[in-house]
Amino acid sequence: MPLSPSPKALIPFVSVENMMRLVHHIGIEQMLVELTDAIEADFRRWPCFDKTPRIASHSREGVIELMPTSDGEIYGFKYVNGHPKNMAEGLQTVTAFGLLASVSTGYPVLLTEMTLLTALRTAATSAMAARHLAPKGVKAMAMIGNGAQAEFQALAMKAVLGIEEVRLYDIDPRATEKTAANLKESGLTVIPCKSAQAAIEGAGIITTCTADKQYATILTDNMVGAGVHINAIGGDCPGKTELHRDILLRADTFVEYPPQTRIEGEIQQMDADYPVTELWKVVLGEAEGRQDTRQITLFDSVGFAIEDFSALRYVRGKLEGSSFYQEIDIIADPDDPRDLFGMLQRART
Amino acid sequence: MPLSPSPKALIPFVSVENMMRLVHHIGIEQMLVELTDAIEADFRRWPCFDKTPRIASHSREGVIELMPTSDGEIYGFKYVNGHPKNMAEGLQTVTAFGLLASVSTGYPVLLTEMTLLTALRTAATSAMAARHLAPKGVKAMAMIGNGAQAEFQALAMKAVLGIEEVRLYDIDPRATEKTAANLKESGLTVIPCKSAQAAIEGAGIITTCTADKQYATILTDNMVGAGVHINAIGGDCPGKTELHRDILLRADTFVEYPPQTRIEGEIQQMDADYPVTELWKVVLGEAEGRQDTRQITLFDSVGFAIEDFSALRYVRGKLEGSSFYQEIDIIADPDDPRDLFGMLQRART
Repeated sequence: MPLSPSPKALIPFVSVENMMRLVHHIGIEQMLVELTDAIEADFRRWPCFDKTPRIASHSREGVIELMPTSDGEIYGFKYVNGHPKNMAEGLQTVTAFGLLASVSTGYPVLLTEMTLLTALRTAATSAMAARHLAPKGVKAMAMIGNGAQAEFQALAMKAVLGIEEVRLYDIDPRATEKTAANLKESGLTVIPCKSAQAAIEGAGIITTCTADKQYATILTDNMVGAGVHINAIGGDCPGKTELHRDILLRADTFVEYPPQTRIEGEIQQMDADYPVTELWKVVLGEAEGRQDTRQITLFDSVGFAIEDFSALRYVRGKLEGSSFYQEIDIIADPDDPRDLFGMLQRART
Repeated sequence: MPLSPSPKALIPFVSVENMMRLVHHIGIEQMLVELTDAIEADFRRWPCFDKTPRIASHSREGVIELMPTSDGEIYGFKYVNGHPKNMAEGLQTVTAFGLLASVSTGYPVLLTEMTLLTALRTAATSAMAARHLAPKGVKAMAMIGNGAQAEFQALAMKAVLGIEEVRLYDIDPRATEKTAANLKESGLTVIPCKSAQAAIEGAGIITTCTADKQYATILTDNMVGAGVHINAIGGDCPGKTELHRDILLRADTFVEYPPQTRIEGEIQQMDADYPVTELWKVVLGEAEGRQDTRQITLFDSVGFAIEDFSALRYVRGKLEGSSFYQEIDIIADPDDPRDLFGMLQRART
């Protein structure tokens, strides 16, 4: 009997290598722009989606999460971990993979690495929020925390908002050196700084992306001037925050999905009814974004399943007719669907 | 730059083809026996596991579910769909794949097809329950619903309990023919029957496994005599049941995880505090199983994440040094874990 699987049994798989090829084929900045638009398009139809806080399995060392969502036609989920101590062992803090499936059949239609894709979609989500919240004509940003996410953030803000200068700070100077070296030919003016205070000087966007799994104070109230946009992406699980609560009291806070953000975001420091604005309402024009030049806007970003869904659909749309995937045989598909056992029996050689 | 991924980036993937090779290498009945023991071993340490009802995404046509669990060292989850209407389109009602990961790093350590493995683990779970609940010395079983699960159920009851006769019934005679043909050389006496009533005659174990997504009455009260063990596995989602509630009132009901079974199992027909016994307590000797020869025992099985975890760990244990897997490049693993961007940049050719 031939063992070659039926076409229905095969689904496209995008390996890390193929994802890197795809990114370079499109161009990193172009892909960040397209992802920003894809995510914004899905924020515009936010009410269509099944939404649930991610399902987290916490341990002493980190967290493993499943992030599912569906728009009624396509179902998607991401597997993602967060293990701050991994870096010391030479491992990634965050790794991920994701899947899309047809809602009408339940059959998977895409499996892909998502470590790189998560870095890209996180940066694109930041840029999408900043497009609605950052001060008009902003040219400089601060990047506090120069880990795996830093360059993607800087390039997304450049490609989408026209940022020209990025001011870097990390408690580990080697991280700043790495980021500065990687951005050398980006066209950005890169300014390594010796303190967070120095980094935020003159910056209209302040992005914090640090990985300590604990309540931390990366920014204190006196450091933050009027009119800035804070893009806080490192505080993304229970017990992990980056901003002093006094900053929150001066800012207007925008979030993805309040039930998840209240557990995981900066606002876990606040009362359960602390007022926030859902970003999708701003995107749709149903709520105000930035209203004046002295306002401090805060995007308290924790990452939500719909952003992954947008990124997965975007990647899937790029695959047809391309060489950026291989097919893997992950779905048992007997000729007679009731005859799973017969398929197994006939495979005996 | 070489694009070949680092060893940390590769995880073993068991395709459908390789799963079939593995099953035949071990032998189906031997594998069912070993899986039954693996699942029983994990039921014995039930309190060690993180437990949560599966996360279901329901649509008009079916359901897509994620079933995660962890024992504190290993994390596992299964993706599984249930689409009764698929069969008419030549597709499987249930397909699945699963993953194991290290809790301490969050890195995946196994990705595998689970359509076949789910059929095997479901049959092994039924056999494990019957080992504790079925009448002593039972030789005949009825199998009502002769779909993809039927042969696996029959072989598990044969291999684990010594069942000699299987009595088949399905509303579609072709399904019964298929099952009878597949079991022809199994060593079982196979008796196709023209009604459910005829099938259960003389059977000490009655297994129901039908796929209609609705309240159905596969068995009515008058059909069920004293002393039998009912293994009800088809009623496994909200609105889907197989037994008349009067049967439940005469039976002692055993379940996997009550919060999930009350939503999905036969007992969704009963009050929220309807008394049930958790099967793991019977396995551990903390609760009574079968107590007398006239008792009707009911395993109201919906399938629980720990059974998948057991099956995934079992498969993983068989892989080392074998040829039953390939490695796939799903984890981005830069040399410097903070330098994800550098890895991407260096991959540009």
